[in-house]
Amino acid sequence: MRMATRSWWGWGNVADAVTGEERAALTRRVAATLPGADLTVHEPPELSSLELPAPRVRVPDALAPLASEDPVDRVAHSRGQAFRDVVRNLLGRVDRVVDQVVRPRTERDVIDILDWCTDSGVAAIPYGGGTSVVGGVEPRCAEDYPATIAVDLGGLNHVLEIDRTSRAARIQAGILGPALEDALRGHDLTLRHFPQSFEFSSLGGWLATRAGGHYATVYTHIDDMVESMRVITPIGVSESRRLPGSGAGPAPDRMFLGSEGILGVITEAWMRLQDRPRWRAGASAVFDDYAKAVAATRTIAQSGLFPTNCRLLDPVEAFLNAGTASAGGVLVLGFESADHPVGEPMQRAVQICREHGGRFPDGVRTTDAAEDKASSGAADTWRSSFLRMPYQRDALAAQSMIVETFETACTWDRFDALRAAVLDAANSAFDALGVTGVVSCRFTHVYPDGPAPYFGVYAAGQWGRTVEQWDEIKAAVSEALATNGATITHHHAVGRDHRPWYDRQRPDPFAAALRAAKSTLDPAGILNPGVLMDPPRTERRRP
Amino acid sequence: MRMATRSWWGWGNVADAVTGEERAALTRRVAATLPGADLTVHEPPELSSLELPAPRVRVPDALAPLASEDPVDRVAHSRGQAFRDVVRNLLGRVDRVVDQVVRPRTERDVIDILDWCTDSGVAAIPYGGGTSVVGGVEPRCAEDYPATIAVDLGGLNHVLEIDRTSRAARIQAGILGPALEDALRGHDLTLRHFPQSFEFSSLGGWLATRAGGHYATVYTHIDDMVESMRVITPIGVSESRRLPGSGAGPAPDRMFLGSEGILGVITEAWMRLQDRPRWRAGASAVFDDYAKAVAATRTIAQSGLFPTNCRLLDPVEAFLNAGTASAGGVLVLGFESADHPVGEPMQRAVQICREHGGRFPDGVRTTDAAEDKASSGAADTWRSSFLRMPYQRDALAAQSMIVETFETACTWDRFDALRAAVLDAANSAFDALGVTGVVSCRFTHVYPDGPAPYFGVYAAGQWGRTVEQWDEIKAAVSEALATNGATITHHHAVGRDHRPWYDRQRPDPFAAALRAAKSTLDPAGILNPGVLMDPPRTERRRP
Repeated sequence: MRMATRSWWGWGNVADAVTGEERAALTRRVAATLPGADLTVHEPPELSSLELPAPRVRVPDALAPLASEDPVDRVAHSRGQAFRDVVRNLLGRVDRVVDQVVRPRTERDVIDILDWCTDSGVAAIPYGGGTSVVGGVEPRCAEDYPATIAVDLGGLNHVLEIDRTSRAARIQAGILGPALEDALRGHDLTLRHFPQSFEFSSLGGWLATRAGGHYATVYTHIDDMVESMRVITPIGVSESRRLPGSGAGPAPDRMFLGSEGILGVITEAWMRLQDRPRWRAGASAVFDDYAKAVAATRTIAQSGLFPTNCRLLDPVEAFLNAGTASAGGVLVLGFESADHPVGEPMQRAVQICREHGGRFPDGVRTTDAAEDKASSGAADTWRSSFLRMPYQRDALAAQSMIVETFETACTWDRFDALRAAVLDAANSAFDALGVTGVVSCRFTHVYPDGPAPYFGVYAAGQWGRTVEQWDEIKAAVSEALATNGATITHHHAVGRDHRPWYDRQRPDPFAAALRAAKSTLDPAGILNPGVLMDPPRTERRRP
Repeated sequence: MRMATRSWWGWGNVADAVTGEERAALTRRVAATLPGADLTVHEPPELSSLELPAPRVRVPDALAPLASEDPVDRVAHSRGQAFRDVVRNLLGRVDRVVDQVVRPRTERDVIDILDWCTDSGVAAIPYGGGTSVVGGVEPRCAEDYPATIAVDLGGLNHVLEIDRTSRAARIQAGILGPALEDALRGHDLTLRHFPQSFEFSSLGGWLATRAGGHYATVYTHIDDMVESMRVITPIGVSESRRLPGSGAGPAPDRMFLGSEGILGVITEAWMRLQDRPRWRAGASAVFDDYAKAVAATRTIAQSGLFPTNCRLLDPVEAFLNAGTASAGGVLVLGFESADHPVGEPMQRAVQICREHGGRFPDGVRTTDAAEDKASSGAADTWRSSFLRMPYQRDALAAQSMIVETFETACTWDRFDALRAAVLDAANSAFDALGVTGVVSCRFTHVYPDGPAPYFGVYAAGQWGRTVEQWDEIKAAVSEALATNGATITHHHAVGRDHRPWYDRQRPDPFAAALRAAKSTLDPAGILNPGVLMDPPRTERRRP
């Protein structure tokens, strides 16, 4: 897998891109949903045909063996994997690129790189797997700095230590999902953090962005799996003590979790692990009434049953991505355990669904062997669809489609109004743009006090304008989130794209405190400028 | 209950103090455990006989209706409820007392009080229920400031709003445990946060100190129950958005949780609530081998069964406080749910205990009615003992006993070494002091990756010297915690007493960031000086 060629312009591996029958089927489905869409396929430009600005800086000799000026490297490290990243690549818009890609092999290298950046004023953008969908790794600040570099942590990719008794491991931040799970498998352990980006994203990236993962309840964010962290800041190394829990002052790790590279570079962490599950149960409840489906989901979220999977697909999502026609959506339920059978909690969840009008046309599947997969038909379809989504997104993006997602969380009392406002905002934006489109909604995670809704936007755009068209839709729906008290991001992070709404959401005194922390830890203001807050003024950066 | 007279020198209500037969029984038990102890009862001094320094400041006229110079008020607000606080009161050592007690009735009052303190350089110590056991409310900084005041939040004591759908409530910070539960009971809701101090501690205090509560697993700290917080800082009001979960930058609430009054005054919070439990199951496993008892507890903690109660009492704790003689200790187990019977997880936990040699002489009790209590004999005994402990501590403190607790958390792999080191350190300190004593250990909370051990120290001290004797024991055991990688506090907070060990535990760059945050939010350095960090130098405080 690690030998495969990565796409320079889009998601994942070149060999896995959508082609042939998959594209034809996708095109047929979209054409049926959005009649009249111009689905001509546009090919990406030849990378060699693009004119990149010359690197503005050379790294010091001592760091030269770690640096790359290769154009493919530079372009690939200057974009994340958002829709607007992919489309700009397809259009050959690669104006702002990092000047160098630097690949530390040791923590000492990271320190040396940050020291050089601090001394020279060069901006350093920490880079894990590069799957940011919020502009988190893009050198949009390029002209404000003498140069920008990507600090690619991919060389720090080992599991260093395993504590089987406490079920924890010390892991380097640059490791990608599959290599991490491979290293743990031999110990019968697993991190069980499976974001959609799993194959191409890194532990450090998950930590820096507070990624959401596998568990729909309890351990929803990577935050909950952190025992301690080691972070290289420009003023020194911050290492917290390995602790299962603590109450000694404000939690140090919580300052770095979600700091998105502006306070330091995460190099390793002790992570809490799980035994590999043996017992599983899965079922999909089909509803005729979405309000009742939401009520069932809320009841389960408040039951203390703690399902592993509790994803409510609304009718649009269920139809588009699980192939299930329903008037009220589909609730995909799953339980798993390494310790005990999970039939009883599953049956209670089923009962709750039935009390709210849910039907189980595929029944309930339970297994007690680790190899078997327990899930119903709709769940299976949805799951494979989940993994193909980013590839299909790319295919559609090349066919003038606007295909993007955004996610949030709100309390249950506000959800109905929020969803209505988001759909209204998106549809109004479609109208204003003169495009046709649909919006789908699913819950990725649920809490006792509210869901984390994830929206998909599919609209037929105009080639060459889809980035700007998306930006208008995004502004409209983000406004709907803000005015309905929802968060601008539940697990995609803020990056550069969510800044205006994040700035309004963040309490002012906290913003002031965070700026003070940043100035103290990164006095030269070189770490990932523009993310979470504006870069410091130039006079601040050159002391 | 709220009409009862509070003890000025010790725990709780005067009417509930240990007297008569309870004291006689206690004395007999101690005499049997620690033969030779001088258990003469020393009476507290008359408060009127103590000479208090005159108040050094008057509050401005506008605040005068909120202020009190009453000596009892001033003394009672100048101490927490640690052993060393109680004994110093008994000895009449009330040297440093706050100059005024100010009781805001509104949030506006809090703002006005902080404004005055900022302008005048008067130190403000936020005061909830005053049950700190770490010197968190003591004006030890008195001579560095022109005056110190206690800001008693007791007037902000209402449940302002209830969202039944999301199971959350907006609650003022000054409310005490019983009033809070009373207000929620009518809505069939409960916060279910029951620290030992429950009756006399406040929501704001719990939040500021990251208090640990009822749940032995999952929702161990009050932190986990916070939806949003409102904090008055000297530079403005910080209010986070009500969210069930978020990933938008470093979590704002996590900076104020555990900030112990140095960054601002918490005035209200939206708290996540629970339905009142209906099904319960309880059992107590008796072990012959403590190592096997620990292994059983660890297996349950890693099982995903999520018991509500999972408190392993070591043989000393089981004997002293649950009246159970055992070679390997007692594991008190409990499950509860408002949604479903809990017999199955209880049975699995019982099976795990049996696989590790645990016996259940009192069987397993399950109930499905909210009124019934399900617990075994040992658990019942231990629970009533738990509520009497602070009163008995006071009684023994007046009989020259050194009676104190300290608590921590560590990963499972380190627990054996940690406990051995703690016992060794305490026993060495007993020897050096020439006193006899015993140390007990129980787990208050357990995590998949480690327990939160809570140690009790009972030693026969010398009247007039027990504070200093305890300080030496404390220093020795704190050193053992530090060198074995445990936290200096799991849920008692840092205050002033844990500072030397906290300072070593806290990563330096994080300390620098926290100091920067403090300087920004509290530029005059007037908030709870000496807690978590040294007070700023005087020239900083008077800009």
